[in-house]
Amino acid sequence: MKFKVILNYIGRILLLEAAVMILPLIVSLLYQEGFRLYISFLIPIAVASGTGLLLNIKKTKSKLRAKEGFVIVALSWILMSLVGSIPLMVSGDIPNFFDAFFEITSGFTTTGACVLNNVELLHKSIMFWRCFSHWLGGMGILVLILAFIPEDSDGTTVHILRAESPGPQVGKLVSKMRVSSRILYLIYIGITLIELIFLLVGPDKNIGLFEATVISFSTAGTGGFAPLSTSIITYSAYTQYVIACFMLVFAGNFTLYYLVLIGKVKEALKSEELHWYFFFVIGSVIIICSNIFRLYNTFEEAFRLSFFEVATTISTTGFTVVDYSVWPSVAKWVIVMLMIVGGCAGSTGGAIKVSRFAILFKTAFYKIKKMINPRHVHVVKFEGAPLSSEVIDSTQNFFIVYILLVGTITLAISLLNPTIDILSNLTATLSCIGNVGPAMGIVGYLGDFSSYSNASKIIFSLTMVLGRLEVYPLLILFAKSTWRKL
Amino acid sequence: MKFKVILNYIGRILLLEAAVMILPLIVSLLYQEGFRLYISFLIPIAVASGTGLLLNIKKTKSKLRAKEGFVIVALSWILMSLVGSIPLMVSGDIPNFFDAFFEITSGFTTTGACVLNNVELLHKSIMFWRCFSHWLGGMGILVLILAFIPEDSDGTTVHILRAESPGPQVGKLVSKMRVSSRILYLIYIGITLIELIFLLVGPDKNIGLFEATVISFSTAGTGGFAPLSTSIITYSAYTQYVIACFMLVFAGNFTLYYLVLIGKVKEALKSEELHWYFFFVIGSVIIICSNIFRLYNTFEEAFRLSFFEVATTISTTGFTVVDYSVWPSVAKWVIVMLMIVGGCAGSTGGAIKVSRFAILFKTAFYKIKKMINPRHVHVVKFEGAPLSSEVIDSTQNFFIVYILLVGTITLAISLLNPTIDILSNLTATLSCIGNVGPAMGIVGYLGDFSSYSNASKIIFSLTMVLGRLEVYPLLILFAKSTWRKL
Repeated sequence: MKFKVILNYIGRILLLEAAVMILPLIVSLLYQEGFRLYISFLIPIAVASGTGLLLNIKKTKSKLRAKEGFVIVALSWILMSLVGSIPLMVSGDIPNFFDAFFEITSGFTTTGACVLNNVELLHKSIMFWRCFSHWLGGMGILVLILAFIPEDSDGTTVHILRAESPGPQVGKLVSKMRVSSRILYLIYIGITLIELIFLLVGPDKNIGLFEATVISFSTAGTGGFAPLSTSIITYSAYTQYVIACFMLVFAGNFTLYYLVLIGKVKEALKSEELHWYFFFVIGSVIIICSNIFRLYNTFEEAFRLSFFEVATTISTTGFTVVDYSVWPSVAKWVIVMLMIVGGCAGSTGGAIKVSRFAILFKTAFYKIKKMINPRHVHVVKFEGAPLSSEVIDSTQNFFIVYILLVGTITLAISLLNPTIDILSNLTATLSCIGNVGPAMGIVGYLGDFSSYSNASKIIFSLTMVLGRLEVYPLLILFAKSTWRKL
Repeated sequence: MKFKVILNYIGRILLLEAAVMILPLIVSLLYQEGFRLYISFLIPIAVASGTGLLLNIKKTKSKLRAKEGFVIVALSWILMSLVGSIPLMVSGDIPNFFDAFFEITSGFTTTGACVLNNVELLHKSIMFWRCFSHWLGGMGILVLILAFIPEDSDGTTVHILRAESPGPQVGKLVSKMRVSSRILYLIYIGITLIELIFLLVGPDKNIGLFEATVISFSTAGTGGFAPLSTSIITYSAYTQYVIACFMLVFAGNFTLYYLVLIGKVKEALKSEELHWYFFFVIGSVIIICSNIFRLYNTFEEAFRLSFFEVATTISTTGFTVVDYSVWPSVAKWVIVMLMIVGGCAGSTGGAIKVSRFAILFKTAFYKIKKMINPRHVHVVKFEGAPLSSEVIDSTQNFFIVYILLVGTITLAISLLNPTIDILSNLTATLSCIGNVGPAMGIVGYLGDFSSYSNASKIIFSLTMVLGRLEVYPLLILFAKSTWRKL
């Protein structure tokens, strides 16, 4: 293990975190929140920048191997959350460490699961920080670093990008990684701004610049923290439609938006993952809407609620507009399944990803066809090209490890919380590993994770990181053979 | 598709079914149940033997391909259940077709899920028939046929054995299939008789020869139909221990018992699947017992209930001795996971099978090790030999298809039963596809499937066959490309 390179990178992460924390500090100053709030941000800024500089006194130019990439990413995310939880504790808004760590991990991993039942009591700067953490975590904080550090000649930083980026294959936007990271972030900033404008011009009187900004951050990162305890319920139909549409946009593959930008609209529309994504979204809306429309006064309301809940779940955002515990079981089951499917590859959405499901379905059909006619030579194609056996294999393995982990984590959570029912425990685990936020039962409609024990909150926090980094980096961090000398 | 061979085989199945139905007819005559009961069995015997003979007038000696093997097995099981449901309807004990079909499919597939809430009202012969169907379905009715028909020189009947036998690899007991089928059945009969004796010498006054026989049938097939509505609850601790131990025996790999018979005890004990099986059983008993012992008067009672419920679930039998809905959530979650694991390969147990889980775990660990040190060449070994990529691949694919089917079937069931909660629907589906029997919620403790709609009962029945035949035969039966001309 090359500790020096790892420490260098972690130092950079801390420096970056110190830098981005200046923004909530400015918010705090603007709202004149007082000395305690200022030091809430100044302390972590000092700690992070000091440690960051210390870790970068000695620069090493050592080649990164895959395992160092995984370790850097896993450690960075845990440290980032530890430092990020300091303002929450010092400000007194979330004084308990376990709650604060859970809350900001939920922020960075874009989960949006919450331990608070009254977010209106939070200071503006703290509210800004937790929603801003969604925005930062959505695209990936290491990707942001890659956008600024010099391109390494031997391309070893690809290991970092690979470990942090979602989806079965790392899309090659453009050949240069630094350039592609910058393009991704520019697109990301652009769409976030467009949503901000849409929200500001809407009919809601209680959406000012602050509210519009934090909602846009939460939507962009497909996070789910909202400025009100009632999530999106009290907003107008216009705002609900706007947010639903943008959730779907942010859970779409960003490579496609790049293609649209450079004029290749037709090519973007040909994307097979996009078709599967549409299929899942439209199919789910039809199933849910046709089963709930009797419960509501107008068809428009039933459609809007169905559409919003499908969008919030498949995008793994976790905003809510309705209590779906009163919906018929088929609607609830569709929501559970969407929690497992998640967004597209190369998006800010979480869970298993649409493209992986597409590959799993196509491979399963292929295998059955092969059984019927063993001598037939078929090829499984995806996005127009034959799938390599490595991609099929790693996709299958990912799904299996994901399911086995859900079983194991639910077991641990049930062990620690014997009185909480298994549907709550199971869906809470699915929700955390998929970075969704809400779940069923006690963590259902406007519910929060405050009933869970402190040990459970640590497990859920690690589960969120596990899910955000697509399982392997955290597993590798804790594997014995990673730390064995070679 | 070679229809003639298929029809030949189906004819043989029907003839065999007619033959085995003579047994419950004899029971009916012994208990002098009257004319209606006699014709309840005589009608299906006449129908089955007539059709069977008709289908075998023209014998064809055509080579079987894999797909014909799958189709024969899938069709046979559906037809067998259709014919087998006739006595239930004609006798008046279960007059509704959907209920009768569900009940006997549940019998043949060794599920043990029930639509009755008062089995004491059944005639003795009908009780005998439903428990006997467990015994027949446990080892596989086509395996029984293979034990009697002449061995084909080119070994094409292996396709049938493969389609009907559980587990990732078809174990080669001895080179000749006919001989191995006979050995399997002799071991099966032997252990069933031993259980019968153990039950008869026990302290329970209400276990006579009839009760001991039907309980032994249900245990041997890992089915779960019991002669009392209270399942095994009212029996003595002795009987409960006996049944629990035999459930575990029948869910173990029969090849090992053959090894023990021919004196290779050491070799049998070396079986890796056996170690995993012990690990799952002992681990589950420890977790459950340590979490429930406070609820009971004596430690012995808590241990016995834990042991019995673990045995009944992992063996996919479905007898019950306790209402586990009052247990803490960790105990319930362990039970749900055991419903998915199931018995060993080459046993009468259902679900995914212990060896498949062992292979999945080992492969996942290998893949993670490979990520840490990409240049290291490891080999995944199971049962002492390196696993071929075909076995790994088919095991992974089986797991994925299984999970995807559970999701889809739960969706269909939820669509048809909007008022039944999703935990009941999900666990009922898991229970049916794993051939377990009971589940959670409304199909939990002493619950039955009578609340489900008729359409749901058909879906559940097909799900049981799907699970019993390990998914592919039924999928292939319904695949378009099976019926395309080549």
